Amino acid sequence: MADRPEPTDQGTGPTDGRAATGAGQEGTAEGRGPTSDADLAGALPKAARRHLARELDWTPRSTPPVPLEQVQLSASRLAPAARVHLVALLGAEHVADDRATRLAHTGGRSYLDLLRRRVGDASDAPDVVVSPADTAQVAALLHTCSQLGVVVVPYGGGGSGVGGLAGTDADDRPVVAVDLHRMADVSAIDAPSSLVTVGPGLHCSALETRLATDGLTLGAAPEGWGLATVGGCAASRSAAGHGHFADLVTGLTLATPTGVLTLGTVAGGAAGPDLLGLALGSEGTLGVVTELQLRVRPAPRRTEHEGWSFRSWAAGVAAVARLARHDLLPDVVRLADPAGTRATLLQGRGPGARALRTRMRGESCLLVVGWSGQPTIVAARRAAAATVLRESGATRQGTRSAAAWLRARGAAPELRDRLMDAGLLVAELDTAATWTRLPAVAEAARRALVDQLSASGRRPMVLTTLSSPTATGAALELTVLADRDDDLPLQQWLLAKRAATDAVLAAGGTLTHHSGVGADHRPWLTAAVGAPGVEVLRAVKRQLDPAGICHPGVLLPD
Amino acid sequence: MADRPEPTDQGTGPTDGRAATGAGQEGTAEGRGPTSDADLAGALPKAARRHLARELDWTPRSTPPVPLEQVQLSASRLAPAARVHLVALLGAEHVADDRATRLAHTGGRSYLDLLRRRVGDASDAPDVVVSPADTAQVAALLHTCSQLGVVVVPYGGGGSGVGGLAGTDADDRPVVAVDLHRMADVSAIDAPSSLVTVGPGLHCSALETRLATDGLTLGAAPEGWGLATVGGCAASRSAAGHGHFADLVTGLTLATPTGVLTLGTVAGGAAGPDLLGLALGSEGTLGVVTELQLRVRPAPRRTEHEGWSFRSWAAGVAAVARLARHDLLPDVVRLADPAGTRATLLQGRGPGARALRTRMRGESCLLVVGWSGQPTIVAARRAAAATVLRESGATRQGTRSAAAWLRARGAAPELRDRLMDAGLLVAELDTAATWTRLPAVAEAARRALVDQLSASGRRPMVLTTLSSPTATGAALELTVLADRDDDLPLQQWLLAKRAATDAVLAAGGTLTHHSGVGADHRPWLTAAVGAPGVEVLRAVKRQLDPAGICHPGVLLPD
Repeated sequence: MADRPEPTDQGTGPTDGRAATGAGQEGTAEGRGPTSDADLAGALPKAARRHLARELDWTPRSTPPVPLEQVQLSASRLAPAARVHLVALLGAEHVADDRATRLAHTGGRSYLDLLRRRVGDASDAPDVVVSPADTAQVAALLHTCSQLGVVVVPYGGGGSGVGGLAGTDADDRPVVAVDLHRMADVSAIDAPSSLVTVGPGLHCSALETRLATDGLTLGAAPEGWGLATVGGCAASRSAAGHGHFADLVTGLTLATPTGVLTLGTVAGGAAGPDLLGLALGSEGTLGVVTELQLRVRPAPRRTEHEGWSFRSWAAGVAAVARLARHDLLPDVVRLADPAGTRATLLQGRGPGARALRTRMRGESCLLVVGWSGQPTIVAARRAAAATVLRESGATRQGTRSAAAWLRARGAAPELRDRLMDAGLLVAELDTAATWTRLPAVAEAARRALVDQLSASGRRPMVLTTLSSPTATGAALELTVLADRDDDLPLQQWLLAKRAATDAVLAAGGTLTHHSGVGADHRPWLTAAVGAPGVEVLRAVKRQLDPAGICHPGVLLPD
Repeated sequence: MADRPEPTDQGTGPTDGRAATGAGQEGTAEGRGPTSDADLAGALPKAARRHLARELDWTPRSTPPVPLEQVQLSASRLAPAARVHLVALLGAEHVADDRATRLAHTGGRSYLDLLRRRVGDASDAPDVVVSPADTAQVAALLHTCSQLGVVVVPYGGGGSGVGGLAGTDADDRPVVAVDLHRMADVSAIDAPSSLVTVGPGLHCSALETRLATDGLTLGAAPEGWGLATVGGCAASRSAAGHGHFADLVTGLTLATPTGVLTLGTVAGGAAGPDLLGLALGSEGTLGVVTELQLRVRPAPRRTEHEGWSFRSWAAGVAAVARLARHDLLPDVVRLADPAGTRATLLQGRGPGARALRTRMRGESCLLVVGWSGQPTIVAARRAAAATVLRESGATRQGTRSAAAWLRARGAAPELRDRLMDAGLLVAELDTAATWTRLPAVAEAARRALVDQLSASGRRPMVLTTLSSPTATGAALELTVLADRDDDLPLQQWLLAKRAATDAVLAAGGTLTHHSGVGADHRPWLTAAVGAPGVEVLRAVKRQLDPAGICHPGVLLPD
């Protein structure tokens, strides 16, 4: 157990949650015996296990990750003289290059990240991990690293799903990970203006807990915030809760190698182009977000979730589109396709779950909707939406179906680890499309995944969920399951992902809805925003980061 | 009448409305006798005229503008060889440098623009006016002008209130105005996705008329769209209707000297930094917007306006802030301060107006609110807002007060010309602030205007309206009236505007809420976005417009 990553000695408080979560992830790597159907029992009911085995033509097998002590880690490439500079800036206790700390800051939570970690590959580990205390220290660090030729990668919660921590520098320079857990204060709450000022390393879940004591909230995140930090959400344009996290950001401080930018708008006042929008989604390539101002809202007086069912996916999509067009969208909307609906229903346990499965017989798609706010307005919105749903052929399924779905979503990250232990490929991707194009995009993505993964003789399963609807369109979240090719697991998914992404873009979908670009989507950025757009981003980067040290392995293609 | 600007011979259709409006503005410049109190009678009831004269210590006098034929216009600086290039690109009928066309494209509608025009100063006239047909022609034009060293200024509706057409080029190069009226088609309507694709020269009012035939709308613009074109609104981040016009833009095409950018997001899908947000608010400095995709909505089934009154401005502001914090904001919110309320009430004519004045006795501030949408939801939102308003000490004043206010706002542009004819300074400015800072910002702006304008021995009147509230704050729109200093009219306002802007920024307000930067706010851009932010904008401009020909006189300081 000596090599198990322990929380680093970088302070206490907000770091505990993060470090514990990190340790928990790595904890799956040790001391596990062979996995069998029985080992999956804790994670999934028997009916669900049988369904998976049948649909995927797969037999659970034990494929435990390489024990942590066997993970390959190269020696730090950081020159001793450079390390001295970092220690002088930040203090010795905030500069760590021990094996445990470096491994704890390796990679994120994409399927490729997990695969690499499982086979003992830590080639994307940072050479050193530093923990600055404030904006001034980050600015000084960036200036110093610019002069030293050291790459800087911000580290928030480690939860990127698109290789946001898996970028490789074309010049193979040493990499310093900037762990922001010491910058996790709520430094101001302006309740009359619904604004809070926070540090980037603050976990969203911790902020929610803090806000609740003042009767405030960031907005419902029915699936929980996972590993997310506020800085990570802003830098990667994550979606959570009501729509995009970026929409909650009214201002931020961006430390860059050439100076500190204070960006944002006050109460809708706008002078000239939007510079804040350049920092949001910049994924560390322009600098490090060191402070954020976020819009909060009063904790809702009423929150209600309920389920509705449709006889077909097309009918469900049409119904949600109609709600959207008439400004009747609930605050939470998730429509599962038949495969996703079946998976959700099979994950439930007990007599309630059985009753729900009986009730849903003949119905193929589950829609979960939720409202929050002032009770009379919630009631009016809910009634108006119900009218449209009924006219669209939907059947109300009550609150139990919604609860089942929320439970299934909440258990998904842990379940993924167990399914990977048992020999499965479990990957996710997301896109967005206008209502007009959405059916074709969903079908193109599904078809590309099935065709590519079937080519190697396997029978994949694709679960599709429509989410985050707006008047113009919606997001599509796809979860892919297949018997894993243990000889070439990375290639198996890379080929499928490439086929799906090409198909989505060709059908008019976006490169991503809310996962970011990272290393995984980087090859498609030019296709997504156009060559002149990429040149604009490069021009901004040259201005702020002339030495090109800010996270060179993500977002911008080489 | 020979010099009266006629619609240019650049086509028919969408241009008619624009040209007619332009001619109407200039039409005030001719054939008018001395103005007296009697001449104002058509524009303003007697009580309002007396109120103004008393409060401002001013006697109406006739100060007609210089007749158009006496306006000074320098010869075009465009070299004949350069003109040949433009004609080759666009056709002779779309390249005009006659006096009438150049004057019709001179300046916008800021108080300074109107002052300059009234004294016969057309020094900011373009040297030539061209009318391209499509994106390809605009791109070719920008490329050619880059090589020729000719400045390019896009021309939409000519309604800028911040000197958006009054920039001066430090290098004094010839200027070509690009009139976009030939690019005013609705080229696509995707009703299921609530999206329309339009040309930049389309007037917002014309688009509304077109959308109405499909049961759609851009969103309520209770004060009307005035001269606004969709391209102008996007390029200047104007506000109109429900909040900012920029929020309706989901995509646009930007022709630049180095290439054509297609920018935008689909249905919330976001990959990397927001390039669309860089184009919005760029005011022609990066290129010309040649196509836009806009979000529309179904024409509301119910629209309701009503008035409420408060005994004090502070009580009214607190009530609106409370609505905002609890997500109960109506779709239209306008709160007038005591001076603004009195002016509104005095503008009404007839027994209804008299009854309203009686009813409002003892009440100092009028709040106009409006809702639109699904009837049951409108009713629930209206009832919930009414509860908060009553708890905040407001008294319901019914629909007549709202109608009076809307009429007064609608008449404002015409009234301004009449008041200027009669010797008044009539200027406007706007800012935004968080709810916490808003009272101090409003007072700082008012105080600075009163102090500066009183210094020259005059007694000004400042009317303040709170508008566009959000959860975080609101806009403040200030209208300033004073006896005009006919010896140094420009200086009189420039000193007042400078004092007010300095005071607003010092108190934490924004440089503008919705008017843009233009030439008038340009000296403050660095104060508003910071020197590193300005350098980022310059880097983007260098990338897209290396020769610096795109509207160099606005937005970016020299």
